[in-house]
Amino acid sequence: MRYESLTKEELQDALAAEKKRYNAFLKEKLSLDMSRGKPAAAQLDLGAPLLSALNKDMSFPKGTDYRNYGLLDGIPEMKKLFADLFDIPEEYVFVGGNSSLNLMYDMISDAMLTGVLGSTPWVRLPQKVKFICPVPGYDRHFNICEKLGIEMISVPMNEDGPDMDIVESLVATDPYIKGIWCVPRFSNPGGIVYSEEVVRRLATMKVAAPDFRIYYDNSYFVHAITEDAPELANIFRIAKEYDTEDRIYMFFSTSKITFAGSGVSMIAASPKNLLSIKEKMGWKTIGFNKVWQYAHYLYLQSADHVLAIMREQAKLIRPKFEIVLDAFNEAFGDSDTVTWNTPKGGYFICLKCMRGTAKAIWNMCKKAGLTITSAGASHPLHFDDSDSYLRIAPTYPSVEDLKKATEVLVTVVKIVTMETLIAK
Amino acid sequence: MRYESLTKEELQDALAAEKKRYNAFLKEKLSLDMSRGKPAAAQLDLGAPLLSALNKDMSFPKGTDYRNYGLLDGIPEMKKLFADLFDIPEEYVFVGGNSSLNLMYDMISDAMLTGVLGSTPWVRLPQKVKFICPVPGYDRHFNICEKLGIEMISVPMNEDGPDMDIVESLVATDPYIKGIWCVPRFSNPGGIVYSEEVVRRLATMKVAAPDFRIYYDNSYFVHAITEDAPELANIFRIAKEYDTEDRIYMFFSTSKITFAGSGVSMIAASPKNLLSIKEKMGWKTIGFNKVWQYAHYLYLQSADHVLAIMREQAKLIRPKFEIVLDAFNEAFGDSDTVTWNTPKGGYFICLKCMRGTAKAIWNMCKKAGLTITSAGASHPLHFDDSDSYLRIAPTYPSVEDLKKATEVLVTVVKIVTMETLIAK
Repeated sequence: MRYESLTKEELQDALAAEKKRYNAFLKEKLSLDMSRGKPAAAQLDLGAPLLSALNKDMSFPKGTDYRNYGLLDGIPEMKKLFADLFDIPEEYVFVGGNSSLNLMYDMISDAMLTGVLGSTPWVRLPQKVKFICPVPGYDRHFNICEKLGIEMISVPMNEDGPDMDIVESLVATDPYIKGIWCVPRFSNPGGIVYSEEVVRRLATMKVAAPDFRIYYDNSYFVHAITEDAPELANIFRIAKEYDTEDRIYMFFSTSKITFAGSGVSMIAASPKNLLSIKEKMGWKTIGFNKVWQYAHYLYLQSADHVLAIMREQAKLIRPKFEIVLDAFNEAFGDSDTVTWNTPKGGYFICLKCMRGTAKAIWNMCKKAGLTITSAGASHPLHFDDSDSYLRIAPTYPSVEDLKKATEVLVTVVKIVTMETLIAK
Repeated sequence: MRYESLTKEELQDALAAEKKRYNAFLKEKLSLDMSRGKPAAAQLDLGAPLLSALNKDMSFPKGTDYRNYGLLDGIPEMKKLFADLFDIPEEYVFVGGNSSLNLMYDMISDAMLTGVLGSTPWVRLPQKVKFICPVPGYDRHFNICEKLGIEMISVPMNEDGPDMDIVESLVATDPYIKGIWCVPRFSNPGGIVYSEEVVRRLATMKVAAPDFRIYYDNSYFVHAITEDAPELANIFRIAKEYDTEDRIYMFFSTSKITFAGSGVSMIAASPKNLLSIKEKMGWKTIGFNKVWQYAHYLYLQSADHVLAIMREQAKLIRPKFEIVLDAFNEAFGDSDTVTWNTPKGGYFICLKCMRGTAKAIWNMCKKAGLTITSAGASHPLHFDDSDSYLRIAPTYPSVEDLKKATEVLVTVVKIVTMETLIAK
């Protein structure tokens, strides 16, 4: 319905009907959660072979006992698998623990304390350093900046990635801009895939700070849910041409391939960066869990097999996205004030509501027992000045719960939108 | 032989005989390693049941799916197991990833960047912060301080722990002393067990800095190798009486119980500290590998079973310590210039050679194909001004290799000692 073209009387009538529905939901005492990008149990069940990949009679590949200390940068089998997946050289790959977020945090906290390839530690600079934050974006990225005292500069996300005109003009002149957060394929929460042009401009733009890095969180690189999902250009290949490889830290993990929080993470970087990463990792730890890395290798086998697993994952995830998208289409298909993206991969739908309504929608959902990600979470310091973005995570609930949750959400969006229009 | 009471002629004769032995070793082209505290394959084999603890048909305890995100501070089963082991409340326990060293690093880097329970971040203080480093100590502890720009104050280790008269006088007056490194049971490398008095003085001493912490690395807490190994007093219990619990961070991991580098780590701290630890960990990661934590629980079962496993470990380790200790006794039993400790647990023997000889011994061992931990490693900045301490790690080589390695080492110590005496 095009709510914005209804008369106040029509709105009042429609509102009364929706309120009745809402009150019925209240009586159901629901407890529904669409807040975090968590895999559903059925997705995790796909990973069952990982649980029996190891056994007490096994032997490890000749030469190195993965049960003992050594190999700070990970086992060669997983290095090769990740390298194949991203079409990069094996020597660019550092295989870590279970959390790629932790690797991102480490890169930033290391830079704060000890600089980047010999640059001044950021805490010793006379000014605060700054990161570019394309919005909407991932709350945990922004939180790292917030907690470590890094100033955030919001830059709008376009359909093909961050607005590169703005990004280029910022990084070219300000040596205190030390980073940009990127989720280049199926961005969180917008589901955007960066175009080849955007990737190229990121790789080749002029940067004022020699220790500027692209924090390239490629978490969803293999998480397509439709056959026609756009590919992502290989940023390392482009950067190599232009001799700018040192500006890239690429992160990945198998958290949403095997088990969420019990996967294997990766950072990929140029040989020069990797040498420094290994040195600093060596201050922190003797090494990561190689037995678990090897279990992953035994289960995942190859880059091709990872893609095959992800096609199975997509079969489970796609119908859930369709439930939400179909409901949005039905309710707001002809609306200009309530819009959303139709992602071809990743874990999220980004719902853009009428200006000034997101917080009210979140609150009203909460009262009806539906948790969605906090309004504002996709913006630095939780401050979405348009108060319009909501992140919807459809994967975790069962199909039945998801249907109910979507009904509640749609009803609430209608109510708050109509109330706002009436009050105008 | 009491080399120090021989005449120069007697020394020359003995030296010639030892040099002949050494030259014979050179011809063998040996490749032996006693450098790091690594478990031997037979020890790792004890952990085989861990590899088959998980299986594809398993279910997780009701309520929480350990394959998914959640439980930042670890699974309740491992919290209870660690709490039982150390006789502390479960709510003091944070179960981490594979590396307790990483937890130590995190506590320090967090303090540098964001302070401790509201204190000024250490990087913002007008002076460098300082840590007390009992020597000889663990090179990786000292390395963290070195790399993060923390000044180290060496304090001697006595037979019952750090010299507490010195420690107390330092921490009572200097608010820039923010920490002390402790390995309270079977210290690395001295094998010292802190006496109850030392533990009590640590827990109750007056400290000038409110954000002073004891970095209590209890890695070897259950790693007794003899039946009569002294127990360690419960520092949390003492601190509770004196309301000083907040000054303790206790670290532990199963690296030398299950698999080295693929175990499960722990930090134990007061509820107030733990709240802050959880908050800051939440900036870095969504959580640690709970599937692997649960595999550990299934294998380790209980604190009692951990102790039973460690008795099996001791059966494998004790004979190796005896090989080295017997050889030292035979060669230097009546010497005053070459001394060592007889550890009742842990992973190391600390050999104290004649002043000014450790580096020469290390070099000569290296030339004969025997790697031992670098001379100086047990001191801050690798600077042992007495040039006398060497750390011997007997666990990793096979019994045969260990015998050979010990022969080489003893021969080299004799040669360098006699050459030094002759040159006097």
